Parts: sequence; structure tokens; C-alpha cells
Amino acid sequence: MVGKFITFEGGEGTGKSTQIKLLDDFLKVKDCDVITTKEPGGTELGTELRKLLITGSQDKMDAITEALLFFADRHHHLVSKIWPALNANKWVLSDRFADSTFAYQYYGHNARVSYENLQSLYKLAVGDFKPDLTFILDIEPEKGLKRSFARALNEKSKELRFENIDIEFHKRLRDGFLKIAKNDPQRCVVLNADKTIEELHQEIVHVITERFGC
Amino acid sequence: MVGKFITFEGGEGTGKSTQIKLLDDFLKVKDCDVITTKEPGGTELGTELRKLLITGSQDKMDAITEALLFFADRHHHLVSKIWPALNANKWVLSDRFADSTFAYQYYGHNARVSYENLQSLYKLAVGDFKPDLTFILDIEPEKGLKRSFARALNEKSKELRFENIDIEFHKRLRDGFLKIAKNDPQRCVVLNADKTIEELHQEIVHVITERFGC
Repeated sequence: MVGKFITFEGGEGTGKSTQIKLLDDFLKVKDCDVITTKEPGGTELGTELRKLLITGSQDKMDAITEALLFFADRHHHLVSKIWPALNANKWVLSDRFADSTFAYQYYGHNARVSYENLQSLYKLAVGDFKPDLTFILDIEPEKGLKRSFARALNEKSKELRFENIDIEFHKRLRDGFLKIAKNDPQRCVVLNADKTIEELHQEIVHVITERFGC
Repeated sequence: MVGKFITFEGGEGTGKSTQIKLLDDFLKVKDCDVITTKEPGGTELGTELRKLLITGSQDKMDAITEALLFFADRHHHLVSKIWPALNANKWVLSDRFADSTFAYQYYGHNARVSYENLQSLYKLAVGDFKPDLTFILDIEPEKGLKRSFARALNEKSKELRFENIDIEFHKRLRDGFLKIAKNDPQRCVVLNADKTIEELHQEIVHVITERFGC
């Protein structure tokens, strides 16, 4: 595969989708062939799975069911969209990927799915593949959630199944993302997301330019 | 768990749902507390997953995605319906369970998901649990498919994603079910389904009575 696979990770309200849009614009100006996508829901089938996963009550399914559905969405996303795009020499920018499952299910939810089970699902659904670069956008959970609820209100969104968990969960989630970054420092770059959109975008562009020379 | 978990397996058009209904009636007359269910789709969430899995074209998803979704449905089915019923001393009669995934994905589709991957998903989603008794209803694929298409036409059903595979697939599927039965003879009873509904029902009742003394 010759394209670049860049993922954006972090808790709620860290500005991932805004930053993806700005990076997409930046890369297009540089004549790069780029697609943007997201998890869950980056495909037609995924849109249906996203509805099941992101809306409704906390207890509508247990942790193992949820993990199986996230990895079903992810595998379909890879084979039907991400891998074909990378093989066609495109850049792929994804709003969340596998780190989110580890951060939410393992760290946020206090290992309610074991690390071994998540790794076994990763191996089955993703294999040895991983992103070329992962931005972990980091912000204090209180600030991130405030932004996220404001956006949901504004967009009349019902996608609040994960926001509606207690603040301690979101603190563990943040710590989880930071641990993931620490364990894979070559792939992950942590950026403080508590700044203006333009400032954060410039930092992202700086990393991209340094790393890939575009 | 003190209830009995009885599964009905076999290819298309073997009469599983009809026989479940008759056995349900028989057990109720005997004052047993019984529920009937099915896979995929034995739960509210499962109904959504069933739509994704059973309708539409063959190539809407690949084998790994399909296996992950079937096991997500199965795990949710177990934790939200089957295990609670068994713990409440009920009989649970299910139209398909995990044998179907092995028969369709591994045997029918020529090991397009490896046995090891299916076993690892079984362990994650089902653990060490298995049915108390499994009826494998066996019929020549040509006859079974004829019945199945006739029913779909009659019910205006769109649930034909698996019927619409070539006859060689359905022959491998049948052989697969017979191999599963051979490998687990304590649990599985193979019955020739090419007979009248009442004859087959009497054979099922005979097995149930012998095995569980009711």
C-alpha cells in the first residue's frame, strides 16, 4: 500500500472532525488525492451499525456485543474503503479507528472487555495493519464534553450514547488515549486541543509536513 | 443453569421453524415453561442485525464482517434472552445457533473464515457454553431449496441472501452439518427431514422424551 492512513483520536469534543476537514483542504491544495472517513459508519453498512452503536441507552447491549459490532464495522471499513483507497495511492483521514475501541472499552470502561479479547479481535479484523500516523487530540474532559453537548444541541443530534456516561469514565478515557500514545510513540502524536482551531490546524500541518514532506 | 437449551439446525427448507412450533406446543401441554427464539434476530437489536445479514446481495459484506455480526447477534442473544431463561428453569428452543455459522462460513463457503478464527469468536462470544441437545434436520439440498423458495414466495419474504447461492454451496453446507454431528454425537441428533411434518415431529418427541424423560 502506498497511500497514507492518518487517524484522529481523542475523547468527545476534541475537534477531530473540524481538524480533518482543514487537513483535507490543506492536502488538496497540495494536489494530494485524499478521502475522509469515520468510525463507526464510514460505509453504507457502517451507517446502519453506527445507528445501533451511537444512539440509545447505555444498557442496550453489553461490552462484548459492542466490541464485536465495532470490529465488524472496522473490518468492513478496511476492506471496502480504506485498503482500496490506500492501494490507489490516496491519503485516508479517519475520524477514529481502533485506538478508540481500546480507549473506550478497555480504559474508559475499566477493562470490561479484556485487553486479550480486544487484541484477538484486532488480529482477526485488522491483522498486522495499522495507521501511518495517529493524532491524539487531548483536552480536559469537562471542556470536551461541554463542546460536544453544545454541538449535539445545535445539530439536534441523538448521537450521545457515549457522552452520557459519568465524568470519571471520560477521565479514564483520556488517560487511556495518553497510555496508547506512550506505548506507540512512533505512530502517535499527542496534541493539546485546548486552543483555537487555526492554531491546532497549524500544529497538525507542521507534523504532516515534517513526517511526509508534503 | 437448570433449563434445557435445544437448538434446531440444518439447511434451508428443512422445516426447523415448523418443528419448533410443534415441539413448543407439545412441551406446553406437558406443563413445561418454554420460549422459542431464533438466530439471527432473537432480540430487538438482533432484529436490526438480521435485516443486515439476511437481505440484500451476496457481496454486500465479506466473510469476516459477516462472522463478527453473527457472533455479535449471538452474544447479545445469550446474555439478554437465552441465559436468563435457562436460569429461570425454562426450556429454550432456538431456530439455529452456532453450528450454523460453522456450517455456512466454514463448510459451505470453503473455509473462507478459518476454523481457528471461528473458534476464537465462539470462545469470546459463547465461552464454554453449548446446547443440551441439537437436532440436525437433514434433507437433499434440491428438495430443501424448493421448499424454501416456495415459502419465501408465499410470504413475500426478502430473506433470500443465503438461498441465492449455488447448489454446490448447499451440498457442502449439508455435508458440514453432518460432520458437525459426527464430531459431537452426544449433543447432536441427525433426523431425515424428508418426511411428513407429523412423522418428523413424532421422532423429535421420541428423542426429547428419551433424553429428558418428559
